Amino acid sequence: MSSETHDPFAAAPQPVMQDFVFSHLDADEATLDLERRRWSGIRHRHELSPLDPRPGEPVTLAVSVGRDVLADHVTAYVTYDGSDPAGSRGVAANGVALPLQRVETLWQPLHWDYAERWQGELPGQPEGVHVRYRIEGWHSSQAGGSTWSREMPIDGSVETPAVYGYVVDRHVAPSWAQEAVVYQVFVDRFAPLPDRWLEPQELSVFAGGTLQGVREHLDYIAGLGVSALWLTPIFVTDSYHGYDTIDYLDIDPRFGSKADLARLVAEAHQRDLRVILDFVTNHTSHRFPPFQSALHDPASPYRSWYSFGPEFQHGYRTFFTSRSMPQLDLDDEGARSYVLAAASYWLREFGVDGYRLDYAAGPSHDFWAAFGAACRRANPDCWLFGEVTMGSDWLRTYAGRMDGCLDFNFTKLVRRFCAESAPLPASQFATAVERTQRYFPAEFTRPAFLDNHDMNRFLWVAGDDKARLRLAAGLLFAFGGTPILYYGTEVGLSQPRGKGPHREESRHPMLWGSRQDAGLRAHFQRLIAFRRQHSSLVYGEIATLHLDDADGVWLAERRHGADRTLIAVNRGALSTSLSLPPGAFVDMEGEPWRDRLHIPAASIVLLANT
Amino acid sequence: MSSETHDPFAAAPQPVMQDFVFSHLDADEATLDLERRRWSGIRHRHELSPLDPRPGEPVTLAVSVGRDVLADHVTAYVTYDGSDPAGSRGVAANGVALPLQRVETLWQPLHWDYAERWQGELPGQPEGVHVRYRIEGWHSSQAGGSTWSREMPIDGSVETPAVYGYVVDRHVAPSWAQEAVVYQVFVDRFAPLPDRWLEPQELSVFAGGTLQGVREHLDYIAGLGVSALWLTPIFVTDSYHGYDTIDYLDIDPRFGSKADLARLVAEAHQRDLRVILDFVTNHTSHRFPPFQSALHDPASPYRSWYSFGPEFQHGYRTFFTSRSMPQLDLDDEGARSYVLAAASYWLREFGVDGYRLDYAAGPSHDFWAAFGAACRRANPDCWLFGEVTMGSDWLRTYAGRMDGCLDFNFTKLVRRFCAESAPLPASQFATAVERTQRYFPAEFTRPAFLDNHDMNRFLWVAGDDKARLRLAAGLLFAFGGTPILYYGTEVGLSQPRGKGPHREESRHPMLWGSRQDAGLRAHFQRLIAFRRQHSSLVYGEIATLHLDDADGVWLAERRHGADRTLIAVNRGALSTSLSLPPGAFVDMEGEPWRDRLHIPAASIVLLANT
Repeated sequence: MSSETHDPFAAAPQPVMQDFVFSHLDADEATLDLERRRWSGIRHRHELSPLDPRPGEPVTLAVSVGRDVLADHVTAYVTYDGSDPAGSRGVAANGVALPLQRVETLWQPLHWDYAERWQGELPGQPEGVHVRYRIEGWHSSQAGGSTWSREMPIDGSVETPAVYGYVVDRHVAPSWAQEAVVYQVFVDRFAPLPDRWLEPQELSVFAGGTLQGVREHLDYIAGLGVSALWLTPIFVTDSYHGYDTIDYLDIDPRFGSKADLARLVAEAHQRDLRVILDFVTNHTSHRFPPFQSALHDPASPYRSWYSFGPEFQHGYRTFFTSRSMPQLDLDDEGARSYVLAAASYWLREFGVDGYRLDYAAGPSHDFWAAFGAACRRANPDCWLFGEVTMGSDWLRTYAGRMDGCLDFNFTKLVRRFCAESAPLPASQFATAVERTQRYFPAEFTRPAFLDNHDMNRFLWVAGDDKARLRLAAGLLFAFGGTPILYYGTEVGLSQPRGKGPHREESRHPMLWGSRQDAGLRAHFQRLIAFRRQHSSLVYGEIATLHLDDADGVWLAERRHGADRTLIAVNRGALSTSLSLPPGAFVDMEGEPWRDRLHIPAASIVLLANT
Repeated sequence: MSSETHDPFAAAPQPVMQDFVFSHLDADEATLDLERRRWSGIRHRHELSPLDPRPGEPVTLAVSVGRDVLADHVTAYVTYDGSDPAGSRGVAANGVALPLQRVETLWQPLHWDYAERWQGELPGQPEGVHVRYRIEGWHSSQAGGSTWSREMPIDGSVETPAVYGYVVDRHVAPSWAQEAVVYQVFVDRFAPLPDRWLEPQELSVFAGGTLQGVREHLDYIAGLGVSALWLTPIFVTDSYHGYDTIDYLDIDPRFGSKADLARLVAEAHQRDLRVILDFVTNHTSHRFPPFQSALHDPASPYRSWYSFGPEFQHGYRTFFTSRSMPQLDLDDEGARSYVLAAASYWLREFGVDGYRLDYAAGPSHDFWAAFGAACRRANPDCWLFGEVTMGSDWLRTYAGRMDGCLDFNFTKLVRRFCAESAPLPASQFATAVERTQRYFPAEFTRPAFLDNHDMNRFLWVAGDDKARLRLAAGLLFAFGGTPILYYGTEVGLSQPRGKGPHREESRHPMLWGSRQDAGLRAHFQRLIAFRRQHSSLVYGEIATLHLDDADGVWLAERRHGADRTLIAVNRGALSTSLSLPPGAFVDMEGEPWRDRLHIPAASIVLLANT
């Protein structure tokens, strides 16, 4: 534990400016716009009850109808054989038509107007059925004027009628994923073996990290005590970050070869380390050959993989405004089967253990249902988690498609609680983590992190105050979903002080050797070991035993079977002592505690029942 | 019907500036603030199911708990004998404690955080029982730190712990109120008999209107065909408008005497005109003797009628920031019984038929429950409707307390549809009126109006275009709740063009004699007669037969028993013809129509089945 007696929060903090966790999606203006769009038109938003249908369970579909739609009929056209559902005005072209009922008229304060909710029930289906549907609303007085439900792309692109879907199964996220601690490696920035760093002048080009570099540091990674490794994209690319794929079926030569990957996976597995790859389905590189074919030849078989038209800034739909990242239409059968085959290939042929799914809010839920089913056929024990920077209501709708989503909200909470000079009250942090646990299904993994490659490093945001980092790390391992440690965070890698907040600044090369803060690393090792030893930190309900907002003190308990942990948080400026419940406890350093616990300012103590 | 062939909407319209219907409560900033406050703390917001409990019906209470409250217990302390409920940490001081259960954790997008819903069920009660309760939440880990549910005053005043209540009865709004057409008289501005207008230089002082003046124009009012008369406040006051009462038990001498009121009521009743008074319970004049006593003597028995303290701008709670309008605490037993006795007095002794309740959002719902019960004891057939300038979700919670609320949202819709140069699409107007009808209980009256004394006159907003006024009036009588006609609107009374939008400008003296637009008046007489002849316009469900947003055309049908009406609206710039459903119809001028209807630009045609 930290033995500082100074008050790190009383010192004039480095100003935290323009910190970004959600790309400003949580800003007032964006929130209002999103919520108003959500209550316009016909929206389904994947509102299923139950969230993740099991074999034989009937499913209630809920639909909202905004103030701008006059409808006296809302119908879902449903197929059960995987075919594309279609229909018109209550008559299904294939499959069946399910008429929905208007169940509620409600007041929508953000529009200062009314909306409606409609519902219908789909019958239960046997295991393995891929249920697909489209939703149409119309008014019987109007010829032709049907309205199709649309979902809201967060990239601001054109809204198109949505196809929905889910696969009926009994799948739950693998327990290894629930119990994992993940180390995220940004491949180009981790270790440059067999050569030296390229030492470019800028952060936006290749720096020289390789798969061999990662492999030769597996002892280091395993030595931290983590159980899984997430590699940022390694497929053929012309960018150093790899988030624009040119070939989904080969490794970029600058990172290495298929043989390098095979050897890395094998040696990781020998150390009980799972390997998770980063997979980008939403868009490709513009240099991806099928895109080049589609772009230059309207008759190309790949034309339907993308969306072309004058309504798009560059003549085709892209990832936000990026001309070099054309967006795949993954509801197109050709594009979908290509991507599913590629994802299956690495799982099946290389023993890869799962995927972190980039920009998972882009493709449809129906695609993710099919993607999940295909990946599980290739590797039934794989873990699939998405990057979705939206509100928790949207995240939860992925239940049953993916095994979970990255919990950006936890990142934001922990930063607001630990890194900001006007911190969140302890009660608000406690309330949010308790409710997060209740809000999501227990089987939905919520990988949690302090920082990643798309935001400022926590340490920099916290004014390079390592006491705050230790506190935040304790909160991550005590209350987060599956913890993810971003390379370098464990040894004090930060960002240059003089530079502004910029995503690239979080991608400086890994510190090695004497440049590492060994004390900090040891702290992380203890935290990781403690988390992995105590199932209550994975599965136990978070219960508040004591909370004092004035002092910033919070004592929580988690229990799972015979395992019981206490977590004592002192966010305040003064050391304090706390009454413990009956029992004998021991902290991470092996110190025994009973009756009362002494806790320094700005620190966290994790205790296990002995 | 209008025979204009010009296009009134194509002409450059007078700019509609700063129109106000809701005092900007529907502005973005206020909406966000209100919704965020709604999802903070512990809020009940009178969420009962059913909305208006009948004898023996169990009642579900719903409570939301915001992100700022950590609670593992929420309890309602309930009394059934009218006494003030109290309790602490689950133990009732009187009555009973009802523990609520956490039923849902939900995502609140405007806070980008979680909230909770808790519920509990109160047993059914016999007729006449006044159920009262307070709601407390706390966390068992914290000593003392309970949180009491608070409601949100729209005047921005301090939120205090709320007492809730409802009276179990079988009451429904009187059918005369459902079927009425009301004429609103601003007493000081209607008729100055026995003398002439005082002709002041300003609109903010007495102009000379009297009760005698109203009485001597009863033939005029009855001649319009209306069935009820609403008089703005006539009790002792020192303002021309009367919305600050100095004596609730006497008439202001400038308006007349009790004898004048008695004679007015008697002569109105002879003409089958009901008389509705305007009653201000929320605040008094600062010259009200009990306030003077309370202000100057802390030991005054009236001290508890008001709220004194340094937290208030003037040292005591007021109506918004008005020093001369101290706000009553109507949960205080003394203040409440005084006000209930005064309201009962005029109903019982003068045969008054009901009250328009000024600023009804101020006093508690528990007060309104008691107020309604007391008024009905004095006059079982009275009609009580409130002025509440909030969203429909809040209005609906008055069901069972009052008989209804003024429908400001209809006013806003009709202005946006008829008076603005970029009008609301026809479908959005149709959708809103159809949903309004579904959203509120059928027995909850929603008196509707184009304008009143607190906003610009419709005609002025519409650039003094009488075709727009005729269209709007048709919509009011065809689709509004109980229609209210503001004095002068029927004869073309407007506001000076050069002056800005200001509330006082809507209070110019009534036009009499040749200054009246007789053609417009005849149009209103036909509309009123048509409404009163056709119960379908009161009770019939609004059904859309045809709608075309491009042309701004809407054909709706309403049926009630054997009565059937069609309403054809042409908001567009061109005359058109419409297919009618099978049947023979006649319009307000007695013209027969069959198969097709010709409808001029910017007009409305009301048809009855023959």
